[in-house]
Amino acid sequence: RRKGAPEVVFGETKETAQVIAMAQALLAGSGRAIISRMRSETKEALLDVFRDYTIRLREAARAMVISRPDFVRPDTGGHVGIITAGTSDVPVAEEAALVAEEMGCRVTCIYDVGVAGLHRLVGPLRDLLSNDVDAIVVAAGMDGALPSVVAGLVPVPVIGLPTSVGYGLGGKGMAALLSMLQTCAPGLAVVNIDNGIGAGVTAALIANRVAQARKHPLR
Amino acid sequence: RRKGAPEVVFGETKETAQVIAMAQALLAGSGRAIISRMRSETKEALLDVFRDYTIRLREAARAMVISRPDFVRPDTGGHVGIITAGTSDVPVAEEAALVAEEMGCRVTCIYDVGVAGLHRLVGPLRDLLSNDVDAIVVAAGMDGALPSVVAGLVPVPVIGLPTSVGYGLGGKGMAALLSMLQTCAPGLAVVNIDNGIGAGVTAALIANRVAQARKHPLR
Amino acid sequence: RRKGAPEVVFGETKETAQVIAMAQALLAGSGRAIISRMRSETKEALLDVFRDYTIRLREAARAMVISRPDFVRPDTGGHVGIITAGTSDVPVAEEAALVAEEMGCRVTCIYDVGVAGLHRLVGPLRDLLSNDVDAIVVAAGMDGALPSVVAGLVPVPVIGLPTSVGYGLGGKGMAALLSMLQTCAPGLAVVNIDNGIGAGVTAALIANRVAQARKHPLR
Amino acid sequence: RRKGAPEVVFGETKETAQVIAMAQALLAGSGRAIISRMRSETKEALLDVFRDYTIRLREAARAMVISRPDFVRPDTGGHVGIITAGTSDVPVAEEAALVAEEMGCRVTCIYDVGVAGLHRLVGPLRDLLSNDVDAIVVAAGMDGALPSVVAGLVPVPVIGLPTSVGYGLGGKGMAALLSMLQTCAPGLAVVNIDNGIGAGVTAALIANRVAQARKHPLR
Amino acid sequence: RRKGAPEVVFGETKETAQVIAMAQALLAGSGRAIISRMRSETKEALLDVFRDYTIRLREAARAMVISRPDFVRPDTGGHVGIITAGTSDVPVAEEAALVAEEMGCRVTCIYDVGVAGLHRLVGPLRDLLSNDVDAIVVAAGMDGALPSVVAGLVPVPVIGLPTSVGYGLGGKGMAALLSMLQTCAPGLAVVNIDNGIGAGVTAALIANRVAQARKHPLR
Amino acid sequence: RRKGAPEVVFGETKETAQVIAMAQALLAGSGRAIISRMRSETKEALLDVFRDYTIRLREAARAMVISRPDFVRPDTGGHVGIITAGTSDVPVAEEAALVAEEMGCRVTCIYDVGVAGLHRLVGPLRDLLSNDVDAIVVAAGMDGALPSVVAGLVPVPVIGLPTSVGYGLGGKGMAALLSMLQTCAPGLAVVNIDNGIGAGVTAALIANRVAQARKHPLR
Amino acid sequence: RRKGAPEVVFGETKETAQVIAMAQALLAGSGRAIISRMRSETKEALLDVFRDYTIRLREAARAMVISRPDFVRPDTGGHVGIITAGTSDVPVAEEAALVAEEMGCRVTCIYDVGVAGLHRLVGPLRDLLSNDVDAIVVAAGMDGALPSVVAGLVPVPVIGLPTSVGYGLGGKGMAALLSMLQTCAPGLAVVNIDNGIGAGVTAALIANRVAQARKHPLR
Amino acid sequence: RRKGAPEVVFGETKETAQVIAMAQALLAGSGRAIISRMRSETKEALLDVFRDYTIRLREAARAMVISRPDFVRPDTGGHVGIITAGTSDVPVAEEAALVAEEMGCRVTCIYDVGVAGLHRLVGPLRDLLSNDVDAIVVAAGMDGALPSVVAGLVPVPVIGLPTSVGYGLGGKGMAALLSMLQTCAPGLAVVNIDNGIGAGVTAALIANRVAQARKHPLR
Ligand SMILES: Nc1ncnc2c1ncn2[C@@H]1O[C@H](COP(=O)(O)O)[C@@H](O)[C@H]1O
Ligand SMILES: Nc1ncnc2c1ncn2[C@@H]1O[C@H](COP(=O)(O)O)[C@@H](O)[C@H]1O
Ligand SMILES: Nc1ncnc2c1ncn2[C@@H]1O[C@H](COP(=O)(O)O)[C@@H](O)[C@H]1O
Ligand SMILES: Nc1ncnc2c1ncn2[C@@H]1O[C@H](COP(=O)(O)O)[C@@H](O)[C@H]1O
Ligand SMILES: [Mg+2]
Ligand SMILES: [Mg+2]
Ligand SMILES: [Mg+2]
Ligand SMILES: [Mg+2]
Ligand SMILES: [Mg+2]
Ligand SMILES: [Mg+2]
Ligand SMILES: [Mg+2]
Ligand SMILES: [Mg+2]
Repeated sequence: RRKGAPEVVFGETKETAQVIAMAQALLAGSGRAIISRMRSETKEALLDVFRDYTIRLREAARAMVISRPDFVRPDTGGHVGIITAGTSDVPVAEEAALVAEEMGCRVTCIYDVGVAGLHRLVGPLRDLLSNDVDAIVVAAGMDGALPSVVAGLVPVPVIGLPTSVGYGLGGKGMAALLSMLQTCAPGLAVVNIDNGIGAGVTAALIANRVAQARKHPLR
Repeated sequence: RRKGAPEVVFGETKETAQVIAMAQALLAGSGRAIISRMRSETKEALLDVFRDYTIRLREAARAMVISRPDFVRPDTGGHVGIITAGTSDVPVAEEAALVAEEMGCRVTCIYDVGVAGLHRLVGPLRDLLSNDVDAIVVAAGMDGALPSVVAGLVPVPVIGLPTSVGYGLGGKGMAALLSMLQTCAPGLAVVNIDNGIGAGVTAALIANRVAQARKHPLR
Repeated sequence: RRKGAPEVVFGETKETAQVIAMAQALLAGSGRAIISRMRSETKEALLDVFRDYTIRLREAARAMVISRPDFVRPDTGGHVGIITAGTSDVPVAEEAALVAEEMGCRVTCIYDVGVAGLHRLVGPLRDLLSNDVDAIVVAAGMDGALPSVVAGLVPVPVIGLPTSVGYGLGGKGMAALLSMLQTCAPGLAVVNIDNGIGAGVTAALIANRVAQARKHPLR
Repeated sequence: RRKGAPEVVFGETKETAQVIAMAQALLAGSGRAIISRMRSETKEALLDVFRDYTIRLREAARAMVISRPDFVRPDTGGHVGIITAGTSDVPVAEEAALVAEEMGCRVTCIYDVGVAGLHRLVGPLRDLLSNDVDAIVVAAGMDGALPSVVAGLVPVPVIGLPTSVGYGLGGKGMAALLSMLQTCAPGLAVVNIDNGIGAGVTAALIANRVAQARKHPLR
Repeated sequence: RRKGAPEVVFGETKETAQVIAMAQALLAGSGRAIISRMRSETKEALLDVFRDYTIRLREAARAMVISRPDFVRPDTGGHVGIITAGTSDVPVAEEAALVAEEMGCRVTCIYDVGVAGLHRLVGPLRDLLSNDVDAIVVAAGMDGALPSVVAGLVPVPVIGLPTSVGYGLGGKGMAALLSMLQTCAPGLAVVNIDNGIGAGVTAALIANRVAQARKHPLR
Repeated sequence: RRKGAPEVVFGETKETAQVIAMAQALLAGSGRAIISRMRSETKEALLDVFRDYTIRLREAARAMVISRPDFVRPDTGGHVGIITAGTSDVPVAEEAALVAEEMGCRVTCIYDVGVAGLHRLVGPLRDLLSNDVDAIVVAAGMDGALPSVVAGLVPVPVIGLPTSVGYGLGGKGMAALLSMLQTCAPGLAVVNIDNGIGAGVTAALIANRVAQARKHPLR
Repeated sequence: RRKGAPEVVFGETKETAQVIAMAQALLAGSGRAIISRMRSETKEALLDVFRDYTIRLREAARAMVISRPDFVRPDTGGHVGIITAGTSDVPVAEEAALVAEEMGCRVTCIYDVGVAGLHRLVGPLRDLLSNDVDAIVVAAGMDGALPSVVAGLVPVPVIGLPTSVGYGLGGKGMAALLSMLQTCAPGLAVVNIDNGIGAGVTAALIANRVAQARKHPLR
Repeated sequence: RRKGAPEVVFGETKETAQVIAMAQALLAGSGRAIISRMRSETKEALLDVFRDYTIRLREAARAMVISRPDFVRPDTGGHVGIITAGTSDVPVAEEAALVAEEMGCRVTCIYDVGVAGLHRLVGPLRDLLSNDVDAIVVAAGMDGALPSVVAGLVPVPVIGLPTSVGYGLGGKGMAALLSMLQTCAPGLAVVNIDNGIGAGVTAALIANRVAQARKHPLR
């Protein structure tokens, strides 16, 4: 419903029948339906009902893209980087990756760089920068320190994506979110805990804006 | 300390002598010192101590920029829009404006558009878009609804800036921040309550990235 | 137990046997029993036990009204409007609709108007007003912005009904409730998260009061 | 800014000059300016600047109404009751009374009925009902029990107004607000802590609606 | 483990084998084992293992007392009253009743008096007082108003027992607890949400102290 | 306003004139006025206005008792013990002592026993018990551990009184209150943070009940 | 990943296949894999897959250590004491014990000393001290008082380990954690609720440091 | 009051007379009084009253040590490192330094290393390690990321000390504390926000233990 961003169906709290109906409406409209957080029974039903459509599954994110055979996904030339602190942050990061791709961006993922393993971060980050990455999403749970570290190192816009990893006080992403809001690296913008779609849309809006400028230098 | 963003001295919790020392260090380095949230006695002292320097005062934000006579502020060609819901949100918005300007951006401010007065919003928003705005900061307190409304209307990246306006439960910016994190317009990124500097830096990083692409279309 | 409002049995935390006993007591008394948040096994049992009674099922709200054959529901002439921001808000809105109807009101429902789709709101809202709606319930989760928007547009009393939709910080209706309490549209009154019964009763009390005045203009 | 409700200037966080400017704009427009939570220096300045205008002071609420000599306050025929649990709740209740009066209602105040002194409540409540009160605001701090008690006794719409009275856990109106949201008397709607204006506007909107119906019985 | 109070085994988080072992130890010691919040499988096992012992079941509280045949429960002459606001508060109230009985008190229960139905309260309360009740436990969820009302009416020590009844903000006993802590009836002491054992022990300690004084007037 | 407890005027949030008026009303009624949390200017005014009355000052608690010359304070024979963990807890403890005395009890205070210095506790506690103390108030801030320790040692009813001592997370009495609610010594009842009046009233109600039983052994 | 501490795989949120893969990587590297919070199906699979390895099971902690036959666990000479307040705290304490042992320490466990049973604590504590314990972990839920008591008695570093035991306000370890942070015994350091691994690692780091000093007295 | 740690008088909430009395008692006892968080008038009074004693002032921490001329501070040989993220963290860090010194440790301070400026950290950290530091306190506010980073790099026990720096959500040290509790570097123990004394005592207890082992290698 946001301008410039595709509608995404949030599957977790919806009945299979509702998801199918919404998917059909979207397919009739834009020619593509994106479903996130599918329950497993919904996934099976969708695969069956839409077997004549093009289907792209992103298992880790429990997400699916269904497109009409004639649908052509845009290719904007925007470039989004997606980094995670741990392996537990990957499902949410995959959500961000998927939606950025569907918005026409090239997406480069760097997973599980840790905070302790900062050396594991430096190389790939340099590659991202030399490949003209336009925006970077950094997903982290627990202490949520990684986005601040990345934001301190690069002059590219960074979106902090807190994940619901961690238990006890500040668990379930709370410390991660607060820590990103309190960052010492001014200019780190954040989305809500586990909101991979929001992070991906924001990054893609930025990247598409930059890509458009590359194509229309005169304006 | 962040790459691509100037150091800003947070004046509220510092002694005048500390602020002067930090300003001197920054002037000796980059040639410019930005001070935010100055106490009034600090302001007077700075005006006196740095009377041979170029001084730019932003009263509403209690902010000051001191530059060496030879300092040349960059002009990146980036364009940032800054919108507030009410008049109480202006001081924080001005912080964002100031830092975005110091990062080389053109800044267009639209203040006090309200939520009820959405018609007051539509015209200026259309102007912003036709002037190729690259990123928009929307400051709002109380219910914090305006950033979501703006994000729903434009395909440009929007940064939500909650302000500490409002009393009672959810007051002091809490409802505004939560409401932005829960936005129905996916792709609204936020900074912490009253963090005008953070919002301005984020928007300017985006705008500068776009401006750079306009100049270097080949990359 | 409130004057002017029917007793409603909250089924979620009660054993089937308890609900049956309470329904029997209410039927023996006022001639009608309203049950909300029934578990599915309770529903089946009630349908069986009270098969000789008039039964009105409201599936979406998991609610049921059982009446003695001789029970005559009042018709007060009051008119209540019920609006939801999304489809996930419908179950709670249906609770409000049901109880307002049982209190004798005509109820007009407008579901899923979104916030982005404000144009979808304007037409039906105009219809409501020209049909002399006496009170409007607006249900919304996530950012909870819709009740403020509606309250800003109409001179009719509006009851904000936050729903437990949304995850992460401010999720489960918290941001929605806070945002309604912090509304920029003064005069938005609220009930607790998911309290459809409370919103419906409040709106019906208002509508019935207005309807009574229509009938007794002299007082 | 809400339809059917006057604009009220919140004085607490505004400079005297700002308040004067806003009052002048309102006087030029609707012919009346309402200012709440005035600082004492602002009050003095307003009394001086607007000495040629009609001024109504409500000391307890730190509120003032300034009207052009030609301004005629509406008289709608609506009747609003305002009850407080204690004396500490009076300033906030007075805010509600003032705005309801300015919206054209007759207002009856019953202050300091306590909870323990329920007998002190019964008589005046009966009087209110026999004088066709259309809506009742009940202000209470600490345990906030009074609004539920009143709502259980009358078939008239009741607005709970929690006040920031009380210290320790649940203090500053928190327990009062929560307790009203958790009321056992379904159909108690609430506004935020200390939001006298909001409670008064809601009650007056209801009362004016009823009063209008009394005058236009045919619709 | 507290002086003057029996050890109670909290069954909810313990394995059946653990509960049996702890019961055996207590039986070997004091000759009596009290188990609260038993899981149903634990209950069955206990009934089987201790079939040669005297067993007292309190189904509603999921509690059981196992005693050696030779165990003689004290009879102190203390008198404890236990009142609940609703039926949902009964299980927790029963816990209080059970432990007070095991501490040797006579216990009088008055359940489901509501708040709206204060008339239902007055008679039984008068009876309690004329039967020399020494302490009263009042259990209430949701708004938790009843304990304050009772404490305002009687000169007997009252223990507020908040129960985890209610949903939304302030739900699960939070509003009830806060409201009791903020009571307008000074001298209402409280225990934690659902802590029936704690309320019962406190009331019994008081009652036993009074009973002892009745027997030993000279001290 | 509670049966069996004197009215206490809370001075902190009241104007001097209000306090004087309330004191006069109480003196005209019961013959005694108790004022807690007096501001210093109020204290001076009261000393002056009521110079012909009997005045009892309790400096540490900022409390004062004014009585008509003919007023005779009751002497019930009840005995209340009041213990504090530290010296910072004394002002709140003094409030409890004062009100218990005014309710006719003998009060024994044991201040600053610490938690580490448990040996400092044992002796005086033994004295209390051998002097037939009827109820004990234990005031503690920070970790709030002392009330649990005392409750574990004595068979007498204990009232936990958390004080707003401590900073950081759990500061201002929050950890102390939670810790008392979570006590391992079942049967510790609590009042709100800094509510010395509430603790004193509760303890005196218990003690007076016991004392009455001592005098009327037959009932 | 921390220097001086082994990597521990957190099993609770991982698929069996993921755990096996991570274990294999660790075995190939350091020769040992430690898995905590295993699900039962994961346990069975690990026992099967790694049947040719040395396996150490710690049932209570749902933890397992798998080592290559040639792996030699270090023996540092450090000595760690682990104390629990209750039996419910044992699983978390066992996590601490396991990791301290794997870090080469001798570990002495003293479980279920209670708070009321301080006499049960004194003897074993004296033994610990006379056996040169280097650091002590104290696990406690509910009121969390035990770590403060221990820290007050010994000159050895104490690590407070709050456990998620307790219900109602301050339940699930919250009161325990806050109470430890607010300790009256300065110098009690804490880890998060249920973080047995963290407590064990901290204590072992201390003990190993002391042990190293014993061996290298000259440095 | 803790074994092995000196008593420290918390000056912030105490009257000057109280502080003087407590200091005199300590001087009469151990021969030394440590006062933290002195108000400025208290400082002046102490300097005057104890002018014949040895006085050590630590201005930044608002702390003072007063010793009898014959008092000999211990020299244990322990070595404590203290690091801060920013300059605002220094006052709290100085409190830690002071108490560690008074407990006989050598203290090395490294202030304002930032997080972005990790290179500024590496050198001094290496020096600390090669000088056999026994324990390190790391103070940080805002995002509180530094302690985790340090703990990941060194095999020495690290104590995280959150400071009340930062505003908005998670401000005043909340995000910093939560982030440390959620650390990805297992084995980071923490004390409460701004509890410099607690951090210093913990570190010194560790260091003194190690130092003792260095001197008594045989045990
Ligand atoms: N008004 C402000 N809001 C948010 N961050 C700020 C503000 N002013 C300065 N900062 C940043 O806060 C950090 C700490 O500032 P300082 O304490 O001055 O070293 C630096 O990264 C500044 O860029
Ligand atoms: N779904 C619901 N939401 C809010 N209140 C309810 C609901 N259903 C019943 N109630 C009210 O909850 C109170 C307690 O209900 P019960 O426990 O059934 O006696 C009654 O006043 C009902 O009117
Ligand atoms: N220091 C105090 N703490 C708690 N309650 C108090 C205190 N002082 C007075 N009260 C009670 O607070 C209620 C309201 O007091 P007032 O506002 O003076 O009518 C009365 O019931 C008093 O008994
Ligand atoms: N039970 C546990 N409690 C706390 N931390 C743990 C636990 N088990 C593993 N860890 C740590 O959690 C971090 C992330 O673990 P993983 O997700 O398995 O890579 C690692 O640093 C582990 O050492
Ligand atoms: Mg992480
Ligand atoms: Mg706003
Ligand atoms: Mg919504
Ligand atoms: Mg009240
Ligand atoms: Mg109740
Ligand atoms: Mg204490
Ligand atoms: Mg414990
Ligand atoms: Mg920091």
